[in-house]
Parts: sequence; C-alpha cells; structure tokens
Amino acid sequence: MTTTRDIADAFTALCKAGKFDEAGEAFWSADVVSLEAAPGDMQRAEGIDAVRGKGAWWVENHEIHGFDCEGPFVNGDAFAVIFRMDVTFRPTGERSKMDEVATYTVADGRIVEERFFY
Amino acid sequence: MTTTRDIADAFTALCKAGKFDEAGEAFWSADVVSLEAAPGDMQRAEGIDAVRGKGAWWVENHEIHGFDCEGPFVNGDAFAVIFRMDVTFRPTGERSKMDEVATYTVADGRIVEERFFY
Repeated sequence: MTTTRDIADAFTALCKAGKFDEAGEAFWSADVVSLEAAPGDMQRAEGIDAVRGKGAWWVENHEIHGFDCEGPFVNGDAFAVIFRMDVTFRPTGERSKMDEVATYTVADGRIVEERFFY
Repeated sequence: MTTTRDIADAFTALCKAGKFDEAGEAFWSADVVSLEAAPGDMQRAEGIDAVRGKGAWWVENHEIHGFDCEGPFVNGDAFAVIFRMDVTFRPTGERSKMDEVATYTVADGRIVEERFFY
C-alpha cells in the first residue's frame, strides 16, 4: 500500500533534486487546489491546468540562485516541507530570501491541496 | 482588528521564550483539537482540558536540553511554526532531536486546531 509517507518521501526527493515541476506532475490530482498566502490572482488556483500555469509563471519570473528543501514531515493524510530559496524576482530585479512552509494534503495517492505559508 | 498574523506573532513569541504553556493558554479555543502524527491515545485530543492534559504529560515525560522555534509562517486563517527540540524521554532515558512542523488554525481569534507533523 502506498502511504502518505511514501508519497511525501518521493515528492520531497524530487524537490531536493530541484525537480519541482516533475514533483507536481508526478503527484498532483486533476482537481488539485493551490493556496498562496499573498492576495491576488494567484491566491487560489483550482485544477491541474491552473496550478501548472502558476508554476510556469513562477519559473518565468524568478531566477533561483540557491534553494534548500527540508522534510518531509508527516501527519495523517498530509505532509509538510520547508523550502528556503534565494531568488531574484525578474520584473523588479529584487533579490530576496524566501522561507516557506508548504503543506500537502493527499487523497487516493494524489496531492489534492497544496498550501504555502510565509 | 486582530489578524491571524497578529495571533501567530504573539503565539510564536511566547514559544521562542520557552513559554509553551502560556502560548496555549493565551490562544487555545475551549474546543481546540490537537492532532499528533503518532498513533495512540494522544493522537487526537479534543477540548482544552484534554489538550492541557496532553501538554502536562509531555512536560512530565521529557527533559528539554535545548529548543528552537522558527516562524511564524502564515496563510489565511492558519499559520505554521517549525520546532526543533533536543530532548530526553524520561521513561526510557532516550535522548533525541525532534524536528517538527506545527500548523495552527485560527477562528474568532483563538486556535481551534493544532497539528504536528514529523
């Protein structure tokens, strides 16, 4: 049986290898919901196409100088990953360190919700 | 208006000062639910008396050699805190480093759910 910890381990291993897109593609549910803390268009993305679009926007608009992922941390049907990124936001040229906690809720072996805390 | 971030900041400041009990007493709702990852009697504690009892059990059974709290990280009505503890479990004498992510859900200015990931 595939447990939440199995999925958490596999997902986080891909993130640690810098394969963020692959991690999502491997585990997102078709109706995944992605929740950002910051208000705006991308605060709530629903469905895998919208979530892919958000990821593509992020990659286009950020230059990643370095990153670190820690985890996973598991509880029941959910797990958390700590992300630390050193990025430049291309539109403004502003470089900053982003520390985030992400939680992922799993159902039927897929991620049905991701939520980013910062 | 008291925001989730205000509560997150005040709660986490108490934790950083080692005042874990005070943090709970200041912000737990009467019907707070506390969710551990580990199976057993304390996996789900419901109501402030049960959650207090869980805290008292924890304090009695652990010697804390050192700890670190990082955060808070906020999203909407919830926030996350990273806890790192160096503890000895008194019943076995086993010393270990515990790294956890905790998430807290806020309603009407009180914590209504806390969930520990590890």
